[in-house]
This record gives sequence, C-alpha cells and structure tokens, in this order.
Amino acid sequence: MTFPQRIKKIQARLRKKKIDGLLVTDPHNRRYLSGYTPADHDISESSGVLLIPARKAPILLTDSRFQTQAEQEVAPVEVILYPKGLSALLKELLPDLGIVRLAFESHYTLHSVAGKMQAMAEKLGITLLPVTGLVEEMRLIKDEEEIKKLRSSVHLNEQVFQEIYQTITPGQTEIDVALALESTMRRKGAESPSFETIVATGKRSALPHAVPGLVAIKKNQPLMIDMGLILDGYCSDMTRSFVPGVTDKQYLKIHRLVRKAQLAATDTIRAGISAASVDKAARTVIGDAGYADFFGHALGHGVGLAVHEEPRLSSRNRKHLKAGMIITVEPGVYLPEWGGVRLENMVVVRENGCEVLNQDTTWLDI
Amino acid sequence: MTFPQRIKKIQARLRKKKIDGLLVTDPHNRRYLSGYTPADHDISESSGVLLIPARKAPILLTDSRFQTQAEQEVAPVEVILYPKGLSALLKELLPDLGIVRLAFESHYTLHSVAGKMQAMAEKLGITLLPVTGLVEEMRLIKDEEEIKKLRSSVHLNEQVFQEIYQTITPGQTEIDVALALESTMRRKGAESPSFETIVATGKRSALPHAVPGLVAIKKNQPLMIDMGLILDGYCSDMTRSFVPGVTDKQYLKIHRLVRKAQLAATDTIRAGISAASVDKAARTVIGDAGYADFFGHALGHGVGLAVHEEPRLSSRNRKHLKAGMIITVEPGVYLPEWGGVRLENMVVVRENGCEVLNQDTTWLDI
Repeated sequence: MTFPQRIKKIQARLRKKKIDGLLVTDPHNRRYLSGYTPADHDISESSGVLLIPARKAPILLTDSRFQTQAEQEVAPVEVILYPKGLSALLKELLPDLGIVRLAFESHYTLHSVAGKMQAMAEKLGITLLPVTGLVEEMRLIKDEEEIKKLRSSVHLNEQVFQEIYQTITPGQTEIDVALALESTMRRKGAESPSFETIVATGKRSALPHAVPGLVAIKKNQPLMIDMGLILDGYCSDMTRSFVPGVTDKQYLKIHRLVRKAQLAATDTIRAGISAASVDKAARTVIGDAGYADFFGHALGHGVGLAVHEEPRLSSRNRKHLKAGMIITVEPGVYLPEWGGVRLENMVVVRENGCEVLNQDTTWLDI
Repeated sequence: MTFPQRIKKIQARLRKKKIDGLLVTDPHNRRYLSGYTPADHDISESSGVLLIPARKAPILLTDSRFQTQAEQEVAPVEVILYPKGLSALLKELLPDLGIVRLAFESHYTLHSVAGKMQAMAEKLGITLLPVTGLVEEMRLIKDEEEIKKLRSSVHLNEQVFQEIYQTITPGQTEIDVALALESTMRRKGAESPSFETIVATGKRSALPHAVPGLVAIKKNQPLMIDMGLILDGYCSDMTRSFVPGVTDKQYLKIHRLVRKAQLAATDTIRAGISAASVDKAARTVIGDAGYADFFGHALGHGVGLAVHEEPRLSSRNRKHLKAGMIITVEPGVYLPEWGGVRLENMVVVRENGCEVLNQDTTWLDI
C-alpha cells in the first residue's frame, strides 16, 4: 500500500466511527501513514503530529527544527509549524477543517498533554475521543512490500552478526562485542539498532534482561547475543547462543532442547492457529524435558516498524494468527547458576504454513 | 542529601498538600529518590514505579525481569512485584497503606494508563491527583555531592572528546567519528551517551538538529561536535566547533563572535539574575553584529539526571537563577549555505558568580 492508500483506509475507518479527525502522535504510526521518519527523542519531545481529517487531506504539524526534513519526506502532504505549541495551532486549524469530534492516540499521549488539549477542546466546543490501536490494527498485517523490507532488515542483521561472530575471542568484553555489532550496523547502512544489543557470557546469559558489561567473555561457557537493527524503518530481531571454545554435555542438551522447541512451534504456524497454541507447542517440548520453570517469558512477538508489536505469542493470547503477520519464535531455557540458551528467528505467517525469514544457521543444529 | 533525606523531604511536601501518597513513574525522579538505575525502554515499558506514602516507608513496584537488580539497588526499600500489572497491585496495596488521595506524575503517565488507574481508584473510593514538577523542583538545585558527579561527567566527556579529536581526519564519515566517540564513552565507563552524538560537517553544521550521516568530513570547512555522556546517573553536554585544516576569515569572524557571546552570558550568571537576562546578554552580542536571525534557539538548559531539564535559559523565562543550578551556555550562529558554529559549556550557578565546569579549551579562544 502507498501512503495515500493507507490514509484513505484510515479515513474510511474514521468516517465509520463518526470521527472527524485523528491526531497521530505515535512515531511508528506517523511513519506508517506518511513516511515521516524521525523518532521522538522521548514522548515529551515530539518530532511532529500527523493530523488526519476524515474528509480532507492530512497535514503534518511540527516545529522549525524539523521543517526541512518534514517537507522533503512527506510531500505532497502539507507541513505546518507550531511555534506556540500544538494546542495553539489546533485552536486555529480545527474550526477551519470542520472537525468537531477529534480522536487522539491515548496510548501515546501524556496525561498532562491530554489535559491541555481538553481545555482547548472545551473552548472550541470540540469533543476529544481517546482511541488506541486504530493504526496499529492496520500495521498487524504486512503487505509484500513490507515483508520485502523486513526480509532485508533480517538479512543485513545476519551479515552484521556473521562479520563480528568470526572475530569473537574470549577475553574481549561484552561491551566490546556489543559496540562492534552496533558500529557495524550503522556502517552498513542501518538507521540504528532496533534495541539495545544483548551480549551475555556465562551465568549472565541466564538473566533475561542482561545489559552488556565490562565483563570478559569466558571460554567454554555459554554466550548469548540478541541483536536487531532498523533498515528503511523496519526492524529485525535475532538471538543466537553458542560457546566460544568447547561445549559440554549440559550445553548440548539444553541447546538441542531449545532448538527442538523452536522447530515444534514453527511447524504449527499458519493462518488460523491461535497465538496460544504456538506458544504451547514450544512450552510442551521444554516442559516434557522437565525445564518448564526455566522458560519464563512468552514465545514471541510481532515485529514491523516497532521491534515489539502485536501479536504477542503468549499463553494468554487466544487470538488467531493471520497471513502477513510477522512474528519472532524465541524459546529459551535459563538456569540461574549455569547460564541460558535462547534461539530466535523471525517468520512470516502464510495461509498454509510459514516462511522463516532467517537464513543464518550458526549453531542452530549442533 | 541521602536517599532517605530526599524521601523525607518529598513526604513533608506531600503532607503539606494533603496528599497521602505519590506514584513516581519518571525514571529520573525514581532514581533521584531511590537510587534505582534502570531507564525505561520507553514510557510504555516501565522498569518500575516508586510508591511514596506520605507517612510510611516507600516501596518499589516492578516486574520479575528487574527483581534482582531492584533488590540490590534500593535496599532497604521494599520491592514488590506486579505480575498482573500495576493497577491490580495498587488495588491490594492502597487500602492497607491508608492512601485515599493518591498523586501521580501527569507528565510521565500515558493517558491510557491514567484511564485504567482512574477505574481502579473509583472502585476503591480513592481520589487520583495529577501533579507535575513535584520532584523536579527538588532536582533543580544540586548539592555539592551532585555537583561533584556532574563535574566528573563533564571531565570524562572531555577526555573522550580529546582522545577522538586527535584522530579526526577529513574523509572519515560523520558516523565514523560519532561511533568512535560513543564507543570510547562506554569503554571509559560511561553508562551511555546522554543523547545522540552530533557530528556535522560543512553546510550540515548549520542544521540545528543534524544526525550524523555517511558523509565525509570536509577539509577546511566547519565541523561541529555536540556530545555528552551519563556517568553515575549524571549527564554532561558539550559542543565544540572547529575546522579540520585551514580556517578562513569568515569562520574566524563567526567563531569569535559566538565565543564573545558565550563569555558575555557567562559573566552575567549568578544567583538572582533572571534566565531571560542571561539569554539576552548572549543575544545582544550576536544581534549587534547583525546575526540575530541566525541564532534561533534558546541559550541553554539545566542539566542533571536528565540532559534537558529546568531551568531553560530563554527569552521567555523570567524566573531567577538560584545557587546550585547547573546550566549550559550554548550560543550559536547558523548560516544555511555556509555552516554553523556553536560553543557549549556547563556552569554551576553560585551566589556571586558562576563556576565553569568545562576545562577543555579546544578552539575556544582562537
């Protein structure tokens, strides 16, 4: 879908819901609908808001810092600056656009900002409607052009992994390896990492939330790398676990178990299956081997413009997968006093099965 | 002040405002009051909430991913997990703690999350009170221990700058230099950069919001580097402008003008002066030289646990500076078809003047 097609689709939804306009504040939604690329430094420092009237052309509202970039990226969409802030500009714009019922993204608007907008709305006699997930619902299903971009993101991520994987030597620190990975991403044209790279050695690989430290990588002990990048807006996310040096029986046993769980789950994926069933396929393999307590997180999550998005592959998600969804499959086993193994690939849900986007097979089938 | 002293102080303020408890969601405020270090991946993925009853000991609420880290960092503060989410836990905790009027940080709470809390509060007969700036007001004035940490952050940032500055050669890309700076920060023990490093060559140095690109650094043209790091929680922020190669008259003229503006503003800084007057001192120098239109941003901002915090040194801020505030002084002149020069130091406001934290003099007085 082109940006104008996406705008038309969301406008049709707005009209159906009797909404006259939508303020798109979420940076991923903004990019999805207009091609405007900046992230927000943080939610209180927005790089702009896309105003979509239900019956008129959209407008990008931003400040002078972003004017040049906005005009280049979103043409032919009009760009208007808000030197006195968003609410002041809306006060002028909304009556001219005939917007009486204005929706805003409740999940990406600060309570304090909503308060200011409410005051403005009351003065104008406008009704503010909090909505969530309106654009995210469209983003759930990727078209072939988006899948192509996600595939490119996955492959670039794998190239970066391979380049650095070849150079890893015990004694280097986790931070050394993480920085080498992130630098290589940017040198090869990625916009940025899609999340903070995880490099965890030895026992530390058992921490589900490890941050790379000034810690030397240990020989003959588990090493886990979880990494991703953003290419042309789309995220990749991959985990590989391996041992620099010699593996022991324990490692092989855990690694093969996790891989078995990953394959079992992947085998079940097709349009129509529930997210919970896919999670269960992996969890059953791990549980049957007696490690149920050591696989504490959900099996996976959607990936697209955001690295974590719907659908969640968890035991609580009864929703059914649809063709065109892209999800991670990432079972893991974490033994506190020993270490952990997690293996993560990204797959596209298809009508009769799934397509694994990853081609890298490093240590998968040892 | 120790963490317990800070807690006592905020509790006194709560009691004065007839508030029974405060939910601290802002990561900087959380760290300021408890020493709990994690940042939030983003506002929708919180690493925890500090609940401060007005008359009882504080409690850190978080999820299992952060349990170990929380227990290590905030002892003796109690840590409680919320496996079913924050609102579900609050529903159990608040009645036991006797909290009837509960304040939350409106400027760091999503509208959608506030909606869920409101539903919970109504069931319990609790009044939710949005507040902003309660903890930030305490953070405005730094005590000597905080100033020491900020000084260390500034000095480490300067060491990193010097190390890389010596190696910059035309032909390297902006991204090469930015990555070298950020890697060196982490290798020297910084937690992370305090913002995305800016390296901008030639005309690009005239963009106030330049992002490093795969663009070769040009010989004999302006180069601007704006960089900062986080050390022990505290941020640094410094800009240096220079020319790899030979300067021309135009460069020298603009550079000396910006430095003159910086010194003029710095000379005015002492407790009691208004933020606007300091801004004006720099703006007058630049305006008198005929470049008023090419200095579009405010003169500076506060720095502490956050890299951008109060007070803003802008023409609209009539508030008076107080001893112990730490601010940047960063005038700039940006000529679209030529390039820009910005010079930025951090200073501590003292009773009878100010203390410039920066010692690096690279290219300042050419």
